[in-house]
Amino acid sequence: MKRWTLAELAKETGAQLRGNADLMITGLATLRSAGPEQLSFLANPLYRSALAVTGAGAVILREEDAADFDGNALIAANPYAVYAALTHHFDRTPRREPGIHASAVVDPDAVIDPSAVIGARAVIESGAVIGPACVIEPGAFIGARVSLGQGCHVRANAVIHHDCVLGNRVVIHSGAVIGDDGFGFAPANGRWNKIAQIGRVVIHDDADIGANTTIDRGALDDTVIHQGVIIDNLVMIAHNVEVGAHTAIAGCCGISGSTKIGSWCVLAGGVGLVGHIEVCDKVHITGMTMVTKSITKPGSYSSGTAFDTTDNWKKMAVRLKKLDETTRRLRELEGLVQQLTSKTD
Amino acid sequence: MKRWTLAELAKETGAQLRGNADLMITGLATLRSAGPEQLSFLANPLYRSALAVTGAGAVILREEDAADFDGNALIAANPYAVYAALTHHFDRTPRREPGIHASAVVDPDAVIDPSAVIGARAVIESGAVIGPACVIEPGAFIGARVSLGQGCHVRANAVIHHDCVLGNRVVIHSGAVIGDDGFGFAPANGRWNKIAQIGRVVIHDDADIGANTTIDRGALDDTVIHQGVIIDNLVMIAHNVEVGAHTAIAGCCGISGSTKIGSWCVLAGGVGLVGHIEVCDKVHITGMTMVTKSITKPGSYSSGTAFDTTDNWKKMAVRLKKLDETTRRLRELEGLVQQLTSKTD
Amino acid sequence: MKRWTLAELAKETGAQLRGNADLMITGLATLRSAGPEQLSFLANPLYRSALAVTGAGAVILREEDAADFDGNALIAANPYAVYAALTHHFDRTPRREPGIHASAVVDPDAVIDPSAVIGARAVIESGAVIGPACVIEPGAFIGARVSLGQGCHVRANAVIHHDCVLGNRVVIHSGAVIGDDGFGFAPANGRWNKIAQIGRVVIHDDADIGANTTIDRGALDDTVIHQGVIIDNLVMIAHNVEVGAHTAIAGCCGISGSTKIGSWCVLAGGVGLVGHIEVCDKVHITGMTMVTKSITKPGSYSSGTAFDTTDNWKKMAVRLKKLDETTRRLRELEGLVQQLTSKTD
Repeated sequence: MKRWTLAELAKETGAQLRGNADLMITGLATLRSAGPEQLSFLANPLYRSALAVTGAGAVILREEDAADFDGNALIAANPYAVYAALTHHFDRTPRREPGIHASAVVDPDAVIDPSAVIGARAVIESGAVIGPACVIEPGAFIGARVSLGQGCHVRANAVIHHDCVLGNRVVIHSGAVIGDDGFGFAPANGRWNKIAQIGRVVIHDDADIGANTTIDRGALDDTVIHQGVIIDNLVMIAHNVEVGAHTAIAGCCGISGSTKIGSWCVLAGGVGLVGHIEVCDKVHITGMTMVTKSITKPGSYSSGTAFDTTDNWKKMAVRLKKLDETTRRLRELEGLVQQLTSKTD
Repeated sequence: MKRWTLAELAKETGAQLRGNADLMITGLATLRSAGPEQLSFLANPLYRSALAVTGAGAVILREEDAADFDGNALIAANPYAVYAALTHHFDRTPRREPGIHASAVVDPDAVIDPSAVIGARAVIESGAVIGPACVIEPGAFIGARVSLGQGCHVRANAVIHHDCVLGNRVVIHSGAVIGDDGFGFAPANGRWNKIAQIGRVVIHDDADIGANTTIDRGALDDTVIHQGVIIDNLVMIAHNVEVGAHTAIAGCCGISGSTKIGSWCVLAGGVGLVGHIEVCDKVHITGMTMVTKSITKPGSYSSGTAFDTTDNWKKMAVRLKKLDETTRRLRELEGLVQQLTSKTD
Repeated sequence: MKRWTLAELAKETGAQLRGNADLMITGLATLRSAGPEQLSFLANPLYRSALAVTGAGAVILREEDAADFDGNALIAANPYAVYAALTHHFDRTPRREPGIHASAVVDPDAVIDPSAVIGARAVIESGAVIGPACVIEPGAFIGARVSLGQGCHVRANAVIHHDCVLGNRVVIHSGAVIGDDGFGFAPANGRWNKIAQIGRVVIHDDADIGANTTIDRGALDDTVIHQGVIIDNLVMIAHNVEVGAHTAIAGCCGISGSTKIGSWCVLAGGVGLVGHIEVCDKVHITGMTMVTKSITKPGSYSSGTAFDTTDNWKKMAVRLKKLDETTRRLRELEGLVQQLTSKTD
């Protein structure tokens, strides 16, 4: 088992050490479950009460929280970032040896950097370029002329179709499908006529694309995911969407065709955006919101109704269907009351 | 073709036989489509009218329904359960021979029970343990140190990442991704910093996980699916979620991180739950409901609005945006009417 | 690089040529990005302003739009359909040579037409029939006794389970799962008891099924997708659903079990339908609508609430929960005002 002294971890992260410098740390855990050889952290004030009862060997926390805590500590301005950095010591994701597995099918016209890993049963098609230190896990498919920069990680059974471009350190999680056809059909002659999708998907550095997410290739121009974008699982990105740098998109969102999202936006789970709109930078959209028009001011946006017992909800829903009539009745009543008021004055 | 006499089926299921004991049954069908060699069932009273016109050779039904029916019958307290049991006779899912397919890639450090099936092109990584009578279909990926109990079924092209634990008789349908990384990133230095996800996914006995569903591994602690949970397709289970025993989750639901759901709950399709909440046992949530707070009482819960023609809906939606103002106008009007009433009294 | 004269493209599509018949066209592009060797199109009046500034070598447009444009043109009644037809010249999806890749695993009892392509690592099980000119891309799984007509295209890592039937020219995009089990379980003896799903999925000619979409096999009868249906990514089609000819279903929709949708319907993104209902022909359902009852009249239907700033939305949501009470207060007030009116008259 790998282990580090608290002093080593303090030095590595620039945190201030308080307490036993020689304490051996063998793992990370939450405040509630940590033991004496484990390091924990306090980032969210909601969990402050757990500090009093934690069994953690040491805790990463802010200076203002450290005053209330007697134990060993790593004191830092951003405990969550310190915790994030240290998690990588304890990551058990298998490291794979560079080279091409005997069962992989690599086209002779593909270019594979010698430091890259091509896993079992992976398929790399003609003209693909796999950069240094890339990891292609088993069963992944890399289409013709796809280009991956340095340090990309394509996880088991993910698919990247022809001509797509990934920058450096892009992660594509399992089952994600990058660059399949956009949903483009022209109605004519009593049927839907397929429009070949001749654009690509371009994903810039450090983007992270979740499991079973789909990002369709552009119809003519490209679908573009900018630098540092993080996208969760089961998200649908339609053709010609553009997602600005560092935007975060949680699970089950759907972005319709040609919509542009700014940078540093946050879409909570299940959000839907119609096509051909623009969302400016720094917009936060709460869960399951339906966005039907462009958003031009930073801020937080929502739709939907609060949940209730089904009985109450049904009463509400019936009234809601008549809300237009109800509002008109109110308007009428206001008129009547005004008449009455003038009569009685 | 396999066939059974009605008497054999009665004996097997404990149902009471009425009519022709020697009737040969070669299949199951709905009341409307069944023929003279087929067995049908009546479980839902809505379909009682079909009983009069069915061409079925025999029908599984309750005693109270049997009075209205002249044909051959299997009489049981729970016809749906009898039907469920008998479906397995007619299941055409291919049975596979124990053994490892020549095209599978099995790490020498994996432990495969001799009664297990490892299909074509499957990949089993180092340290994985595949228990007796497990079936790993073609193209599935089983990561390092994954442990499967007895009789698990991992369907074509499903993925289970390293260190995850499945109990006995767990089914993972095609394209499902178990144990990929949770969506954890710490914002610092003007970017999202990846938090290694060092927990696992633990799935207890008899759970059934739908096609293309994703269950993310925990950040520190595990994501846990308890015994007998059934999850439909395209469901997103985020990191550190816990789903209680025998809970049923229909398609397209999304459960955000660290949320705990009790046992014997039912989530209808498209339901979304925010993170860090708790839902108690025996809660029913209707389709597409957004749950934003913990639920502490068993019962049925809903959100959303009833659908209408788009024209009516637009009028409603406009009024709804002004509901706060409308309600304040009502309050004001109530004040005026009270004044008028005192004046005219 | 392949290239065509404008005259050749006019002849091929039946469009009327205006301008330089010898202009060499090497690609297609949007009005805003096209260069002098590229052909563009104007189909949506919203983009008419781009016509004045386009750098396109030629534009496909309607006669009424051609009057405002000086450049080379292909004039047609349906410019979008002309554009759709021409996209196929510029499609870079790899063409694969007929034959079975050495790494594919094809059961000796499968029947593969010599003009079909079986890609690397594909698995074709016993009794499957792959028709002329079908393309099975790498990593796809075709189960036992599956039947594919002529010219079907099953993309990388897609899955089709046993006994399903595809007509001619059906496209199954990457990661889609066709014919996995419907979500059928009978509650009895304190657990969910699996109901074997013994129906099939039948997909008729020219249907197109999106990436990571799932279509479950029927419980007893089949799940049926009729001719010319187009389905986008991440759509969930439950067991025994029937989708009528030429219906279009956008991304992230979910259709619950046994529901029947008519022909030429359009479901926008994220729509959900409960089970056991019917939607007639030519129904349009706007994005994220929840459909809880049968629809018997063609037209457009919607549900949900318009989005707003989160602050405004919260006020609305609080008022909405009290809408039943508010409406009753209005009714009461109407009574009071009527009394007052009769008093003051």
